[in-house]
Amino acid sequence: MENRWSRLGSAKSTESHNNIKNVCAMLKRNLNTADPRPPILLGHGDPSAFPCFRTTPVAEEAIVDALKSAKFNSYAPSLGLLQARRSIAEYLSRDLPYKLTPDDVFVTSGCKDAIHVMITVLARAGSNVLLPRPGFPRYEACAAFSQLEVRHYELLPEKGWEVCLDSIESLTDDKTAAVVVINPGNPCGNVYSHQHLREIAETAKKLGILVIADEVYGHLSFGDDPFVPMGSFGSVVPVITLGSISKRWAVPGWRLGWIVMNDPLKMLQESAIVECIKSRLDFSSEPVTFIQGAIPKILQDTTEQFFSSINSILKEAAEKCFSKVNEIPCIACPHKPQGSMFVMVKLEVSLLEDIKDDMDFCLKLAKEESVVVLPGAVVGMKNWLRVTFAVEPLCLEDGLERIKAFCHRHSVMR
Amino acid sequence: MENRWSRLGSAKSTESHNNIKNVCAMLKRNLNTADPRPPILLGHGDPSAFPCFRTTPVAEEAIVDALKSAKFNSYAPSLGLLQARRSIAEYLSRDLPYKLTPDDVFVTSGCKDAIHVMITVLARAGSNVLLPRPGFPRYEACAAFSQLEVRHYELLPEKGWEVCLDSIESLTDDKTAAVVVINPGNPCGNVYSHQHLREIAETAKKLGILVIADEVYGHLSFGDDPFVPMGSFGSVVPVITLGSISKRWAVPGWRLGWIVMNDPLKMLQESAIVECIKSRLDFSSEPVTFIQGAIPKILQDTTEQFFSSINSILKEAAEKCFSKVNEIPCIACPHKPQGSMFVMVKLEVSLLEDIKDDMDFCLKLAKEESVVVLPGAVVGMKNWLRVTFAVEPLCLEDGLERIKAFCHRHSVMR
Ligand SMILES: Cc1ncc(COP(=O)(O)O)c(C=O)c1O
Ligand SMILES: Cc1ncc(COP(=O)(O)O)c(C=O)c1O
Repeated sequence: MENRWSRLGSAKSTESHNNIKNVCAMLKRNLNTADPRPPILLGHGDPSAFPCFRTTPVAEEAIVDALKSAKFNSYAPSLGLLQARRSIAEYLSRDLPYKLTPDDVFVTSGCKDAIHVMITVLARAGSNVLLPRPGFPRYEACAAFSQLEVRHYELLPEKGWEVCLDSIESLTDDKTAAVVVINPGNPCGNVYSHQHLREIAETAKKLGILVIADEVYGHLSFGDDPFVPMGSFGSVVPVITLGSISKRWAVPGWRLGWIVMNDPLKMLQESAIVECIKSRLDFSSEPVTFIQGAIPKILQDTTEQFFSSINSILKEAAEKCFSKVNEIPCIACPHKPQGSMFVMVKLEVSLLEDIKDDMDFCLKLAKEESVVVLPGAVVGMKNWLRVTFAVEPLCLEDGLERIKAFCHRHSVMR
Repeated sequence: MENRWSRLGSAKSTESHNNIKNVCAMLKRNLNTADPRPPILLGHGDPSAFPCFRTTPVAEEAIVDALKSAKFNSYAPSLGLLQARRSIAEYLSRDLPYKLTPDDVFVTSGCKDAIHVMITVLARAGSNVLLPRPGFPRYEACAAFSQLEVRHYELLPEKGWEVCLDSIESLTDDKTAAVVVINPGNPCGNVYSHQHLREIAETAKKLGILVIADEVYGHLSFGDDPFVPMGSFGSVVPVITLGSISKRWAVPGWRLGWIVMNDPLKMLQESAIVECIKSRLDFSSEPVTFIQGAIPKILQDTTEQFFSSINSILKEAAEKCFSKVNEIPCIACPHKPQGSMFVMVKLEVSLLEDIKDDMDFCLKLAKEESVVVLPGAVVGMKNWLRVTFAVEPLCLEDGLERIKAFCHRHSVMR
């Protein structure tokens, strides 16, 4: 008898070239093991392993207390523990012109899970969604997996990576349900002004589409404009905010995030989207109960000092990165990063002798200098690079020096 | 402009009557708040809140150590941390005639997540799957969500809830990819003999279908037959084992489980199913990294004494439950539970005066006696009840007394 499972092979694999983890892993396999220098990894955005980014003891203690209480070993409700939902509502309300309630908040296993939930909900309705280019490729991957149509709007490097509102208008048709806005931005390091966020909200209102605001880097801002949550414009247009503790607390391994309805005028009530999200949450994994139990303490008791020390490390790193890159021939940084952990760097392929494109640059850089940076193609911008500056300062300095040496060596003007 | 998001309401809601959590919650809302007695909840299977089921200090300490090391705050690889995969391979190999390797193991956010992954993989291939009746309704819910066709085979109460092999044969067609076997069983409390497991494997081999073995209750067995993992027959037919620490360690809130390939003859290599599972894991949430970091210690250092004390509480509870139920007119228990946390109880509706069916029984029982048990319909057996015996012994006794009083009061022979 033929094995009936052999046909399971026909299930389409969704592993893709635009997966940050896979590309970084591939580049790491390309490192030169004979190089005595330590490899410098500026490809992915997870500084939690560096001592200077170690999370606050407040957070660790909150977890230990919750665990040891033995009150949080059971299954959690699928929308989250009430005390966690309440404390997230309070935390986010600090920066809003109205108060969120626990009912507005659903707890998820990190922002990635929140993205997956939202994409599935949109896909079920046969909609299409507007995503930024460059952007965070997990959106594209989830959309492909759920067969949701994606349309890309442009971010404008010459305007500090602002959203091209015209491209949003021209892409929207009557199946468009939502526009995703990532602020502070990955991969661009943008932090949008109050004014620009209002324009985005007004545009969405005019088009009758929702805003999905990915604020996983919320408060990691250190430029001229303070971080303003998109939810501030929830009375202009309903805003569904996605976030997590991964970045601000530097604990991406803890897997705790949220989906929040910023809808003070209850405009979403006429649609069943909230019900769809709730029923979809039945199928995703709830965050660990004792971590949910620790959330009130983590959100309330973390000191300003912890936050500002992280932000000042990031600010210095961003400035060093910006000025250093602009000293290097063949690469350029059009906009100094104002937030998040990343900067986009433009590659002048014509000024490089034997470099075909961004992927070729990254492969040779890994081989020759033991430095990993991400090819821009992975985030939607061919012949750009995404560089993470959220690393130990000395690493960053060393990495930038090596990139400089590499560019000099490969320059046509050598 | 009309709001384009209002159409999101057309996305089908998948909230269902066959969701254990929802039905228990509904019954709890039906409790009589005027009843001075404490409610007794025998509806769901999560004893972790009772002091006598508190997890071992070994497990709590392992978590604290991993957390405080600050080595596990980062993102984990999507298949799981190597040391977690290795220790799960070693833990499961103790009971197998061959050795698993870390490559055979993928870490998931509990067994629910493992179920979701497997169902999605089968659905993508356009297959159908054989599920037990009665069974664990999350399989049906995931299948409905992924539009996977389900066919139910029977469990035989008069044969200790063994699998009806004939029904497996007659249901299989050339789109059938797998049969799911839950052992120790929810909701029946069955523990299958070595001989019966071999028969299941031989049947699957003959039909050319995979076995998916849900062993989330693995080792929670206390009857005549010891627990034998289905993977013991991995050289007869490929067995994909799903499990977690939720039940044996009484920590369902910790969300750590696994998918394991029991395939010593590498029969699955010809199919791409393993690749499909891996790429699907990219879209589910990884378990918390520091819990993965704690897994080696949890699996290696938990004492036999902890396990045997939990099993002896369960054994006594199962026996009490069985003998007590069989003293009560109008309800009967055909088979003493040998494992897991549940027993199926048959309702003789004709012997009850004003009870229409199992749901009616449960609603009235909640109202009149403040006792929650699960209507059998939720697990696929109308006019049966599923009773959890994994509760504090005094609670169980009290609950059974109240059920007795209720049945007496409603008996036609009163
Ligand atoms: C824009 C963006 N959204 C979401 C995430 C996922 O965050 P989490 O760790 O909370 O899943 C990331 C992580 O890098 C991100 O860059
Ligand atoms: C048969 C069965 N499989 C899987 C699960 C889910 O277990 P976990 O807590 O590991 O997700 C349960 C939980 O009740 C179950 O009864």
